[in-house]
Amino acid sequence: MQNLYENIFYDKQVNELFTDESLIKYMLRFEAALTVAQAQQGMTPASVAKTIEECCIIDNIKIEQLVEDAALGGNINIPLIQQLTEAVKKKNAEAAKYVHYGATSQDVIDTALILQLRDALKLIDENLQHLISQLVILIEKHRYTLMIGRTFMQHATPITFGFKIAGWLDGMLRSKKRIEKLLVENFVLQAGGAVGTLSTMQGKGLPVAETMAEILQLKMPSIPWHTQRDRLAEIAATLGIVTGSTGKIAKDISLLMQTEIAEVFEPSAKGKGGSSTMPHKRNPVGCVAILANAARVPALVSVMLSTMIQDHERAAGNWHAEWETLADIVRLTAGAVHQAVIITNGLEINKEQMLHNLEQTKGLIYAENISIALAKHIGKADAHNLMEQICKDAQNRKMHVKDLISGNTIINRYLSQDEIENLFSTQHSTGLCDEFINRVLSVSGF
Amino acid sequence: MQNLYENIFYDKQVNELFTDESLIKYMLRFEAALTVAQAQQGMTPASVAKTIEECCIIDNIKIEQLVEDAALGGNINIPLIQQLTEAVKKKNAEAAKYVHYGATSQDVIDTALILQLRDALKLIDENLQHLISQLVILIEKHRYTLMIGRTFMQHATPITFGFKIAGWLDGMLRSKKRIEKLLVENFVLQAGGAVGTLSTMQGKGLPVAETMAEILQLKMPSIPWHTQRDRLAEIAATLGIVTGSTGKIAKDISLLMQTEIAEVFEPSAKGKGGSSTMPHKRNPVGCVAILANAARVPALVSVMLSTMIQDHERAAGNWHAEWETLADIVRLTAGAVHQAVIITNGLEINKEQMLHNLEQTKGLIYAENISIALAKHIGKADAHNLMEQICKDAQNRKMHVKDLISGNTIINRYLSQDEIENLFSTQHSTGLCDEFINRVLSVSGF
Amino acid sequence: MQNLYENIFYDKQVNELFTDESLIKYMLRFEAALTVAQAQQGMTPASVAKTIEECCIIDNIKIEQLVEDAALGGNINIPLIQQLTEAVKKKNAEAAKYVHYGATSQDVIDTALILQLRDALKLIDENLQHLISQLVILIEKHRYTLMIGRTFMQHATPITFGFKIAGWLDGMLRSKKRIEKLLVENFVLQAGGAVGTLSTMQGKGLPVAETMAEILQLKMPSIPWHTQRDRLAEIAATLGIVTGSTGKIAKDISLLMQTEIAEVFEPSAKGKGGSSTMPHKRNPVGCVAILANAARVPALVSVMLSTMIQDHERAAGNWHAEWETLADIVRLTAGAVHQAVIITNGLEINKEQMLHNLEQTKGLIYAENISIALAKHIGKADAHNLMEQICKDAQNRKMHVKDLISGNTIINRYLSQDEIENLFSTQHSTGLCDEFINRVLSVSGF
Amino acid sequence: MQNLYENIFYDKQVNELFTDESLIKYMLRFEAALTVAQAQQGMTPASVAKTIEECCIIDNIKIEQLVEDAALGGNINIPLIQQLTEAVKKKNAEAAKYVHYGATSQDVIDTALILQLRDALKLIDENLQHLISQLVILIEKHRYTLMIGRTFMQHATPITFGFKIAGWLDGMLRSKKRIEKLLVENFVLQAGGAVGTLSTMQGKGLPVAETMAEILQLKMPSIPWHTQRDRLAEIAATLGIVTGSTGKIAKDISLLMQTEIAEVFEPSAKGKGGSSTMPHKRNPVGCVAILANAARVPALVSVMLSTMIQDHERAAGNWHAEWETLADIVRLTAGAVHQAVIITNGLEINKEQMLHNLEQTKGLIYAENISIALAKHIGKADAHNLMEQICKDAQNRKMHVKDLISGNTIINRYLSQDEIENLFSTQHSTGLCDEFINRVLSVSGF
Repeated sequence: MQNLYENIFYDKQVNELFTDESLIKYMLRFEAALTVAQAQQGMTPASVAKTIEECCIIDNIKIEQLVEDAALGGNINIPLIQQLTEAVKKKNAEAAKYVHYGATSQDVIDTALILQLRDALKLIDENLQHLISQLVILIEKHRYTLMIGRTFMQHATPITFGFKIAGWLDGMLRSKKRIEKLLVENFVLQAGGAVGTLSTMQGKGLPVAETMAEILQLKMPSIPWHTQRDRLAEIAATLGIVTGSTGKIAKDISLLMQTEIAEVFEPSAKGKGGSSTMPHKRNPVGCVAILANAARVPALVSVMLSTMIQDHERAAGNWHAEWETLADIVRLTAGAVHQAVIITNGLEINKEQMLHNLEQTKGLIYAENISIALAKHIGKADAHNLMEQICKDAQNRKMHVKDLISGNTIINRYLSQDEIENLFSTQHSTGLCDEFINRVLSVSGF
Repeated sequence: MQNLYENIFYDKQVNELFTDESLIKYMLRFEAALTVAQAQQGMTPASVAKTIEECCIIDNIKIEQLVEDAALGGNINIPLIQQLTEAVKKKNAEAAKYVHYGATSQDVIDTALILQLRDALKLIDENLQHLISQLVILIEKHRYTLMIGRTFMQHATPITFGFKIAGWLDGMLRSKKRIEKLLVENFVLQAGGAVGTLSTMQGKGLPVAETMAEILQLKMPSIPWHTQRDRLAEIAATLGIVTGSTGKIAKDISLLMQTEIAEVFEPSAKGKGGSSTMPHKRNPVGCVAILANAARVPALVSVMLSTMIQDHERAAGNWHAEWETLADIVRLTAGAVHQAVIITNGLEINKEQMLHNLEQTKGLIYAENISIALAKHIGKADAHNLMEQICKDAQNRKMHVKDLISGNTIINRYLSQDEIENLFSTQHSTGLCDEFINRVLSVSGF
Repeated sequence: MQNLYENIFYDKQVNELFTDESLIKYMLRFEAALTVAQAQQGMTPASVAKTIEECCIIDNIKIEQLVEDAALGGNINIPLIQQLTEAVKKKNAEAAKYVHYGATSQDVIDTALILQLRDALKLIDENLQHLISQLVILIEKHRYTLMIGRTFMQHATPITFGFKIAGWLDGMLRSKKRIEKLLVENFVLQAGGAVGTLSTMQGKGLPVAETMAEILQLKMPSIPWHTQRDRLAEIAATLGIVTGSTGKIAKDISLLMQTEIAEVFEPSAKGKGGSSTMPHKRNPVGCVAILANAARVPALVSVMLSTMIQDHERAAGNWHAEWETLADIVRLTAGAVHQAVIITNGLEINKEQMLHNLEQTKGLIYAENISIALAKHIGKADAHNLMEQICKDAQNRKMHVKDLISGNTIINRYLSQDEIENLFSTQHSTGLCDEFINRVLSVSGF
Repeated sequence: MQNLYENIFYDKQVNELFTDESLIKYMLRFEAALTVAQAQQGMTPASVAKTIEECCIIDNIKIEQLVEDAALGGNINIPLIQQLTEAVKKKNAEAAKYVHYGATSQDVIDTALILQLRDALKLIDENLQHLISQLVILIEKHRYTLMIGRTFMQHATPITFGFKIAGWLDGMLRSKKRIEKLLVENFVLQAGGAVGTLSTMQGKGLPVAETMAEILQLKMPSIPWHTQRDRLAEIAATLGIVTGSTGKIAKDISLLMQTEIAEVFEPSAKGKGGSSTMPHKRNPVGCVAILANAARVPALVSVMLSTMIQDHERAAGNWHAEWETLADIVRLTAGAVHQAVIITNGLEINKEQMLHNLEQTKGLIYAENISIALAKHIGKADAHNLMEQICKDAQNRKMHVKDLISGNTIINRYLSQDEIENLFSTQHSTGLCDEFINRVLSVSGF
């Protein structure tokens, strides 16, 4: 784990699940569950299982030695089992014979990964819930906060800030549902032995596996999945989507923080967002971290998809490629969500600046209103062309569109001054912002 | 559409949904639904809507001109609306004013995409169903066909071919469920106008949109999703998973087709898999196509994830990047599933060769059986070490392991000749193959 | 080829090299060169070679049939050779025996690709040269055009627009050099026969290959490279870098076109950048196309890198994955460069707005100047902290920093009014802009 | 840094360059060079520079604190400078004012990265040299070792093992040249200050930068490259190509190690490649690690390409995304090369098995020889068809092709028994293996 960036790109709590020690603990939980289940099925004496279970503690493992020995077998389970067996042997030579009985390295590593992922996804899910609550609060607060809507980064027509946030929330609600579905469906035990047939479990493989699943509170799969990795790919892709949705928020906020726009700001904190050289700057530090993670995760997801091509009963390379890749996906996603929680908690909004910016184009943004109103009378195309011409005039002459329109004879033929006034009202130009907010909130669970 | 490779990488039926003409037809369906819905809501005279609807036919569109004009606006909708408006104007100048009323280019393009994707996913889903049926038949047929299980491409312990296919099926069943979930949840209307507020629909935007959704048989979203692209990303990722699962099948079959292994073959057809220079070859032509697609799709999915970062109310670039990318993902996935259907229909299995290969290691593959049987007596580690030594001896002396074991005094102390004989039986070494097959079939719907 | 987007994402000239017909012509050039070379080496009667060469024309090929037949062998060369042989046979049955003599499908397909890539890269290189010339002109024109430099999208300190463009140019110059290096080194003949040994060329394989290389003006490789794809990967990556560099330009311009910033605009053209609904908009159409391509190419490059893992003497899948991927990379890069040429030719700059924006922060951007000047007297950290405080005051009180500084006793102790005035001068704050411009231009070849 | 996998996927020596401490040391080297250069240019008193330089040691830095503080500014340089300044202040309050004078965080971080990358690339280059020497030795040793060439993983025609390795070597030689070119051209100083103009260096920015470049033995760029990242992208892509080339070797070896093929083996070592459950196995442990890395690096390269889109004078996110991504690319590439050195040193070859496998198809692999020989008499197409028929017969009747051919009247009409015998000779079927080996070795520098 690269510590240097722990507070920039990551979520400490989630990172802690991915330390060397943590992963080994998850592996030891598999071994403990295995022996307990085998004892329950009469394959192992209860006292032996007890001894093994008691030895499944991190203190029995010398990690440095394990790292050194991993080179030979190409995975970390082989030296782990050696050390665990040694520890058991010290207590009871007889019991040592039952360690890791009938299981294969991939059973341990996959199940440990699943347990680790589940804990991580629960934390991410909790943070998503925080994020969602904060977005809901922001929406309510800014339900009527007027601002310009922007397409291709150009002024289009007005919206409310609440409406913009409702869009963010909408995507996040779906992502939360996806995570919750994963938590129910994708966390399954891996226990198959060498080629997935549990052939060395004396015919008791199935009840042993079912008992293990119960102990570890995992689903029991129909069949071992040593080389069927779609569940992991789905987890990876779902996290990729979560990160993408946070990236959208960060992109919007960072654009709104631009000096000339200055409508929204990350919450300030002493020293936060400062530059080493420019004392006046207030950098979008949180957004930058999210955007960085969002730039990295998609490619990592593609690795999880391309490594699904796993040969025969255990893959030569594509399985190994998953290990750090999946951990990185989870850690970066957790970091993105963590930062999204931080920046939406105390987000600063400058309503005056929003109103100020709405006037920037001297009425150009209401041109569509006029165009549509005119279309009824002179047809869409002619209306569009006429307004395009008036808008150009307004820009060239640096005049307000309303002033030009008020003096245009064609327009005056069809629209009254009151109508024109109304068409230039921001409040009257936000369409269904409110209705759409209500629709989103109604499925938000708040 | 690159025609040259249509019969190699693609599914003709699905490709046809993605021609220029086809996409434009979907776009015209949006325009027709829009005007009909607006008439129903009293925004447009019924006769006008009828005229517009009648004009929404491909014959009114000059595609070459449209392609030429697309450069100016940077999308294909602007020139489409121009041509459509021209066509309507010819019939009824008055009606022309109502074309594309209150909608924006992205409404049209996104909804057309959604309709196109839905049709494509239905075809893929049907083909997945074919594939699944064929796999079920193969499983039943080869439930007891013995073969070696391979880990890291090396002989491990025996399985049945039915068990191997059950693994393929298991993943495919989940993928089918995922596709079906998408078909229910992800296909939503896009109708928001310029910034998603339907501000120019005279307050009738919501009922108009709801009517359109009904006409097009799409779900109504909570809020327009111009820059919330998680649904599309999820579709892309799900297709990526489908392709990955077909790739796993193709990888296994292509490995089993290797000259020295020769256990399984793609169905033969006159001229199929021939080489231009080597008359004797029988190339894994279908597998190669699937593997090629599986090498391409993951990266395309990463594009769909990374382009989720869409600024404000319409993205400057990341939206456009989706167009061809998503089409390629769908087309390549459809092609992979299509080829998987072809190669699993009439797959040739050489049972004798499978049995022959099981003997290749002169009993080494049963070493684990012995090791486990011995473990009860002398402990796992010692048993493992002893068997490792015996295996090396057998290899060096090119002897059968059984012969060495029968003469080993330590082993004879614990295992009888009958027990040894049994431990070297392939049938007795396949563990839970049958049970796992049953478990998979029980959720297959067959 | 997807025609619909030809004028948005692509360069027509380059696209034409990638039509079905064009690719087949390149393949026929290989066959013609092969027979001519074999005749020169005495392997084939001159008259036979003449007949074959004359038949190597596109009119002899029925593409639709070829597409249909490609399914059987999984590549387009097998049916091509069949059709070519038929054509030759009609003229001279004897000559038909010599068609494609000793070559393999991959020889033809790879060499055709190389020829196609070379032509495409030459066109891209020419367009890069146009782009470079235009950038040089822009730099000279805006050598002293003052604007704000922005870090993290926030105002930092002043630069000149010429300096910003010099950065763009600097990257582009390196990319042009990379392309030129590829044109010299990476375009090599592929001619190896079935497994790369030219074993069926009667011992004359080497002179035949050397003659072919001469005819096609390709480099002769040390050894056939059927499964050594680093040269193609390098071409792909280099194009990825070119696209990335154009993307940087497009990102900057599109940000500068934002309504609130409004400093730089794509050249206007009638109807260009218009919106279907908002008559006043001027969308960054060219930038959007470049950014879309830049979002797609990196993932495609990753496919070219991951498919380098090509098994044995011809790869089962990873070779096939290259075909459309590499074509897409080239076409999208060509399109990005093409659009970059368009938008930099006639780029509109609003100098007044640049000056106006420089004043936006009421002097905050000069804070670093003061900070540095103070640092000499009170230390960097204290200076930084003092200025940070003053900047916050200025922001809170909506005052100009200069006004606050002029009244600050600590600062007055160390800096005279003249010095202060100077520190707030934009011209005096652009540092080495001019020197760096000179350095870049001096290596530009202009 | 994930320690657990240090001995599986990584090269310890290179990993050590990428520890937290190591990176900080590189950053301190920048600060030391900066102050020394400024002293040489008269900007800083010599004694002050000496004090600062002396303080630029890792002992002055509390990494944990630095990690904690990094959150505020979003990079590790800001807290580093704070700690360094504190350390200097303790020695000399006056000197503290000159720390990091005129530089910006990105100057430090980029230059540190460049220094780190250079050291890493030198180590990789050395290991590539080891690999190349070993490949040269293997080629000489197996120049005449006969084996089957395989296309689409099927037997094609014979080659020598030396020829196969010559293909590996050929790619590796080009990669080495690419690395060497990078080492000469791409390692440039970053020193630009806030926006790249060195505006706060009192007009002495250029000589200071040139002096720094000299001290650090880096090239001086034409212009700062804060948002021009093509050089880094090129480094990333080049490493991606190196990894791909090692992956090709690993893929071939792992396929050749398959139980049924058994022609080539990774060098054995006590306990190496053992399975936790199957005592007889000899897993391709080194190949698996290389293949895992080769599955990961391409996607990481795509991140480096897509993050080239860096806005204005410092990017909001895309710069940050590079940090860990580039480090991972370097570390994984180093690991792949390291493992390639290990597995090619002591690679075990089973020549007898190679000869045995050559006979596997009962002469089918010589069918092309016959086909070509016949083509001269009856035309390529007829010859191909005839041989295709004979090959099918041979397969169906499980006979040797030679036996069928000897009895075929058409063939006997054109080919003598001696000719036939010769056409079935492996030695006479390896074509230009020897010549191509010579050509590759001649450019290998050995």
